[in-house]
Amino acid sequence: MQLLASYLSGSWSQGSGARTTLVNPATEAPLAEVANGGHDLESAYRYARTAGTLELGNLTFAQRGALLASLAKAIHGAREELLALAVANGGNTRGDAKFDIDGGAMTLSYYADLGAKLGATSVLADGEPIQVGRTARMGGQHVWTRRRGVAVHINAFNFPGWGLCEKLGCSLLAGMPTISKPATATALVTHRMVELFAPLLPPGALQLLVGPAGALLEHLGPGDVVAFTGSSGTASMLRTHSKILDHGVRLNVEADSLNAAILGPDVDLTSETGGLFLADVVRDMTQKTGQKCTAIRRVLVPAGRESDVFEALRDRLGGIAVGDPSREDVRMGPVATAQQHEAVLAGIARLAAATEEVFGGTGQVTPVGVPAGKGFFVGPVVRAAEDPMWCEPLNDHEVFGPVTTVGPYDGDAEFAAEFVARGHGCLVSSAYSDDRDWVASFVTAAAPWAGRLYLGSSKMAAQSPGPGTALPSLLHGGPGRAGGGQELGGERGLELYMQRTALEGDASVLKSLLGGG
Amino acid sequence: MQLLASYLSGSWSQGSGARTTLVNPATEAPLAEVANGGHDLESAYRYARTAGTLELGNLTFAQRGALLASLAKAIHGAREELLALAVANGGNTRGDAKFDIDGGAMTLSYYADLGAKLGATSVLADGEPIQVGRTARMGGQHVWTRRRGVAVHINAFNFPGWGLCEKLGCSLLAGMPTISKPATATALVTHRMVELFAPLLPPGALQLLVGPAGALLEHLGPGDVVAFTGSSGTASMLRTHSKILDHGVRLNVEADSLNAAILGPDVDLTSETGGLFLADVVRDMTQKTGQKCTAIRRVLVPAGRESDVFEALRDRLGGIAVGDPSREDVRMGPVATAQQHEAVLAGIARLAAATEEVFGGTGQVTPVGVPAGKGFFVGPVVRAAEDPMWCEPLNDHEVFGPVTTVGPYDGDAEFAAEFVARGHGCLVSSAYSDDRDWVASFVTAAAPWAGRLYLGSSKMAAQSPGPGTALPSLLHGGPGRAGGGQELGGERGLELYMQRTALEGDASVLKSLLGGG
Repeated sequence: MQLLASYLSGSWSQGSGARTTLVNPATEAPLAEVANGGHDLESAYRYARTAGTLELGNLTFAQRGALLASLAKAIHGAREELLALAVANGGNTRGDAKFDIDGGAMTLSYYADLGAKLGATSVLADGEPIQVGRTARMGGQHVWTRRRGVAVHINAFNFPGWGLCEKLGCSLLAGMPTISKPATATALVTHRMVELFAPLLPPGALQLLVGPAGALLEHLGPGDVVAFTGSSGTASMLRTHSKILDHGVRLNVEADSLNAAILGPDVDLTSETGGLFLADVVRDMTQKTGQKCTAIRRVLVPAGRESDVFEALRDRLGGIAVGDPSREDVRMGPVATAQQHEAVLAGIARLAAATEEVFGGTGQVTPVGVPAGKGFFVGPVVRAAEDPMWCEPLNDHEVFGPVTTVGPYDGDAEFAAEFVARGHGCLVSSAYSDDRDWVASFVTAAAPWAGRLYLGSSKMAAQSPGPGTALPSLLHGGPGRAGGGQELGGERGLELYMQRTALEGDASVLKSLLGGG
Repeated sequence: MQLLASYLSGSWSQGSGARTTLVNPATEAPLAEVANGGHDLESAYRYARTAGTLELGNLTFAQRGALLASLAKAIHGAREELLALAVANGGNTRGDAKFDIDGGAMTLSYYADLGAKLGATSVLADGEPIQVGRTARMGGQHVWTRRRGVAVHINAFNFPGWGLCEKLGCSLLAGMPTISKPATATALVTHRMVELFAPLLPPGALQLLVGPAGALLEHLGPGDVVAFTGSSGTASMLRTHSKILDHGVRLNVEADSLNAAILGPDVDLTSETGGLFLADVVRDMTQKTGQKCTAIRRVLVPAGRESDVFEALRDRLGGIAVGDPSREDVRMGPVATAQQHEAVLAGIARLAAATEEVFGGTGQVTPVGVPAGKGFFVGPVVRAAEDPMWCEPLNDHEVFGPVTTVGPYDGDAEFAAEFVARGHGCLVSSAYSDDRDWVASFVTAAAPWAGRLYLGSSKMAAQSPGPGTALPSLLHGGPGRAGGGQELGGERGLELYMQRTALEGDASVLKSLLGGG
């Protein structure tokens, strides 16, 4: 069986000691192993701080962008192989796998283009020159420069391809050497991508640690950045980690998110907007088996319309075959790990105690094409909450699987926003309405509680990617429970890896520093 | 003796229980008392969340700006009274007091003007519209909206006037109700300012807690913001506070900062640039008795030039009378508290073990106009470090008093930047040079380690405020040890109190949300 190696200090090393087995979550068949330790992480950090810092520092944004373009091309060149790995190791259908792999390549391409746009410089102006003295002679100018340190990426199990690429696109374009650590259980895609990327990048620009984090955080120092996607529990551990506290390490967190979807009071379910709403809810439940941090977990519909919504959801979900995702007739695969399987079932049980069944009971399912008793399967589950605002298990606990809960409201936009707020900070929430006044009221009140608000309407229904898709041009990250992080959003995504500095002095000197006069 | 009251839930309350006495740090004469507890903070938060949120939410930026202008005017109207309080309670000379009080009014005026500029809206666009679909129909637009919660300000003892105003200007303009807590020992100025401000502001917009924080953090919830200025130790306590962690409360920290000043190899001490350098070092040592978070702590001068610098510093410092700051002949007062006095003397002792004396020994001084044995006095101290880069007490510990250490370097700009970096993140550092190439090399390498870089040169010497002055138009806050915070910097200062959200949908709907089409 393949023993996955880490790529550290310029070479591949398999580590040592006890091993963890990666399996196919549909069949539980072993796929590969990783060693649980035995890596010289201190040297890896040193390599990043020396070779990586130097090599990336010698490049302009345009040159770094060209590197990212080569990574995107490498993904395209190995696309079928990567899709197959995602299906085998991630429990992904082919569609799910494309979402992860193509999404990763698309994000790299986006940042490649941004690099070209930023051009032959490595310092970014932030705003216009400012007069700070009595005359124009005494000026100020804010700039962004790359942080001098290591970017450490700790990624989640659900997007081994996209997660690697979306963080890497920003850190490399900003000019920070990066150490990426995928979740062990689904590391095959990340591992293969880094095999493809490594020969294309300068020494020290990208390193990979597969297996447990071990002492990964022990070598953090001033100037370093940690970007984490995962659970609130792990996030709390990171926030209180002594190295992060002692060295003022910058930490970006994308954590739990109880994303809401609101059906506006003006929308007929049979309209284009109504159809978009239903399609988005069903897609977010079933795509990646509901394992998207952006998926809709909580749904509000106008009181009196619940039964229509329930019927439409039952109708659409009833036709979805659950089973081995390598089969063409299967529309939804298993969740990624045994641990997730347990957690999702426990979450459903908690929800079930406070809600009514609409579809799928508590997630029991007989998967197709799978040896009896094998695989981490949960069927799609819709629950009904009578009083969604005060349903605690609904609003306080993210069930990271194919599960959603629907409840009624009186159609009031402020109430809908209050319901979004009840999630204590989301990555995204969505509203479906063609009533501009209603949308305006909703947006003003809901925006402080979400990193992104998706506004579904008839005019954009035909070309909408749905709320569950994080686009590189739009901010990804939400306040409060969602972690308070900010990734992507075009140039905004670079801010994590750069320092904003006010330059103060002779205005002509400041101008010349930015390549002017 | 006056018992200072807190302003909570719309009325003044004196609290209860044991009391702390505020003294004149020059004479140790008692000035006022505060109760150590007995406040209903839960109600205060509720009042902010209800009345304060509602009242400020009904205002546009322009209207909030007008409120800030009225606060600045109130300071001007009571200027002499406030200056006298700063002299009595802060150990400030009249010049120090003006720096604090006038600086506060100036910062409020700046944000008043910014409010007028932002105009009759309460939502700010962040960047331009983005096309995210196949056609221009499917768009994205980032916006800033005020966070829905309470802004809690925890201020440092050194700037009871400016500290209140610089945080308040941003939080009120952004639209967040605010609870401000000054350091107890020097609370008289803050207390009086809030007495002046309270009648001018809508209910719930501003509350004041004097005395110990007590349970102030226990009532934090999602959406709240804590802005802290103070020591790294307290900052660590805040970062790991369960309420802040559990609710994803946004925390901004301005903490210890080992700001450096670099004399460029091209600069003659007798030149305009050389004179600026000397004046800035001396001002930062003596203004506010060195108790500025932006003060120069570490100085690099070209090797072979140390003795000239030492002589010039001895000359300038020798003429500075230390004593009761209410006397016109006194140029430097005491430090603010007995605790600070002890800490500064201990810091000097630690420095002394690794450096040579240049001026002022270890800070012993006989103050003028003060009863024998009274007051928290330290004389100005200059130390010399042979190998400044590796002098640990110099680079790892902030001595918050009239103390600076000078060491040699070979004139290399990269080395100078490395020395800035050796502070592990500063609020500000400065370089004095008229050689543009040298300055460019320095800036590129040093910028990632400082929130502000002050570039002293002959062209701006006549109108420079010096590196120690935090201007409202320029970012205040530094990476790493300095806390990683971002305050001021014009509109940038509002970001802490607002949420950035990506809106995604029909481009014409997005445009109409921002008041267009």
